[in-house]
Amino acid sequence: MTNEFIAVDWGTTNRRAYLIANGAVLASEAAGPGVKSMPQGAYEVEVAGIRQRLGELPMLLVGMVGSTIGWREAPYIDAPASIARLATHLCRIDGCTAIVPGVADRNRPDVMRGEEVQMLGAVAAGLVPPDAILCQPGTHCKWATLQDGAISRFTTTMTGEIFALLKDHSLLGPQLAYPVMDDDAFAEGVAAVGEDLLAALFRIRAASVLGQRKDIAAASFASGLLIGSDVAARQVAGRTVHLLADPVLGQLYARAITIVGGQANFIDSKSVFVAGAAAIQGFTR
Amino acid sequence: MTNEFIAVDWGTTNRRAYLIANGAVLASEAAGPGVKSMPQGAYEVEVAGIRQRLGELPMLLVGMVGSTIGWREAPYIDAPASIARLATHLCRIDGCTAIVPGVADRNRPDVMRGEEVQMLGAVAAGLVPPDAILCQPGTHCKWATLQDGAISRFTTTMTGEIFALLKDHSLLGPQLAYPVMDDDAFAEGVAAVGEDLLAALFRIRAASVLGQRKDIAAASFASGLLIGSDVAARQVAGRTVHLLADPVLGQLYARAITIVGGQANFIDSKSVFVAGAAAIQGFTR
Repeated sequence: MTNEFIAVDWGTTNRRAYLIANGAVLASEAAGPGVKSMPQGAYEVEVAGIRQRLGELPMLLVGMVGSTIGWREAPYIDAPASIARLATHLCRIDGCTAIVPGVADRNRPDVMRGEEVQMLGAVAAGLVPPDAILCQPGTHCKWATLQDGAISRFTTTMTGEIFALLKDHSLLGPQLAYPVMDDDAFAEGVAAVGEDLLAALFRIRAASVLGQRKDIAAASFASGLLIGSDVAARQVAGRTVHLLADPVLGQLYARAITIVGGQANFIDSKSVFVAGAAAIQGFTR
Repeated sequence: MTNEFIAVDWGTTNRRAYLIANGAVLASEAAGPGVKSMPQGAYEVEVAGIRQRLGELPMLLVGMVGSTIGWREAPYIDAPASIARLATHLCRIDGCTAIVPGVADRNRPDVMRGEEVQMLGAVAAGLVPPDAILCQPGTHCKWATLQDGAISRFTTTMTGEIFALLKDHSLLGPQLAYPVMDDDAFAEGVAAVGEDLLAALFRIRAASVLGQRKDIAAASFASGLLIGSDVAARQVAGRTVHLLADPVLGQLYARAITIVGGQANFIDSKSVFVAGAAAIQGFTR
């Protein structure tokens, strides 16, 4: 088959490879080593191994593999970023191996590497309209505005990382030891967002000291505060946000989006990577 | 002398004891163990030791020594908190030993323990007018509004702790390894405050990745962003903020206050503790 190829989603902490034909996954590999645990010079060997297992085929590499800590730096393209512009700015390693560039906004400034393929893949798969707001929550949450099927603007927020820092290393640690739930305390946190975050966070401690909130509810409140702050700053009232997220985190973002007057639409983030990679590969033939 | 007494500023990480007569310090002790490193039941011995060294005198204890992790819990009094109300709500251990209560605002909610003595001491010493805005920066920054010489409202912000978490444990760690300076990058951070904090923080990383800011300037920018966010939320334009701070941190807060249109007045935070304790002791005679 002439349009068979291999797509590799190669992030900081893990890697996943797919054998794709006509946009469908024929085979995939279990998780492999992320960029962070790759010794210098080992990329050639790893890539040869993937080809040995999945076939001697053209290969597209996506994600942190194209960063300064990866195999080779694939320079960022500036937003607006479409599938076509990603495809024409591939960083070619050899005749059949290329890295997809990340996207930069030098005015704000901001960068993404990997999420662009999933986001544009969601449009390519027909799951998201060409003009839309997308959100991919996580350690660093990515928000993007799509216009005419291209990423025109995006914002990275440290929401997930700040929550983890507070839980693992801060004065609030003892209060945040319980699970986060999509409950009343979470909604209360979202509603408390009007206040500045630096002050609102300390109130978690004060409420515990004064016996005003059970510690079991504090993590949900804190999560509501952070996710609510993130969502409120994006001004999504009256709009649909397309969420590329796992069910648990997605549900929390969906709740916060609903509370501020928006609407959430869930997208399966695994299938859209394949659709995005296939769309880019389609341009290279 | 009948109005001699001992005042102890006993915080989480260290302790300092003063022998005071007529509001003047006759002697003081080098730093002693903070509440966190005190074994259960050791307070009696420590207090006896202080008396042995400074004199068999009435003793006022201030700070976390009165918290649930201290010697005995001195229940919070509600704001507005004056010297007189602190003095009439002392937690008495015995006939000549008492703990000064902390202050709570159950509506917001918020708590302080120790800062109230310094803040009200600044008024007692005539260094701050009875209607004023005070700020005591630190790991947890305390802002207070004084009315008629009482703390009527206050806010704790996690500014210092968030900066430390980002520097020691976050993705931004490598960028934040340089010293914070009161420089152009700091002012740039203060000016960037309009944007939401969760997004603005990631731009520190993006600016580094895109080569737009030298890492040596990143810590100053981040500090400007956090302190600027803290100051901007307090709405101090056109007003004087009385700063109880060490010179380095005080200078950063003063700069941010000036940028948002306020004015900063430095107060020596060591002498005001003594003035506050003496004023409370004066009420108990």
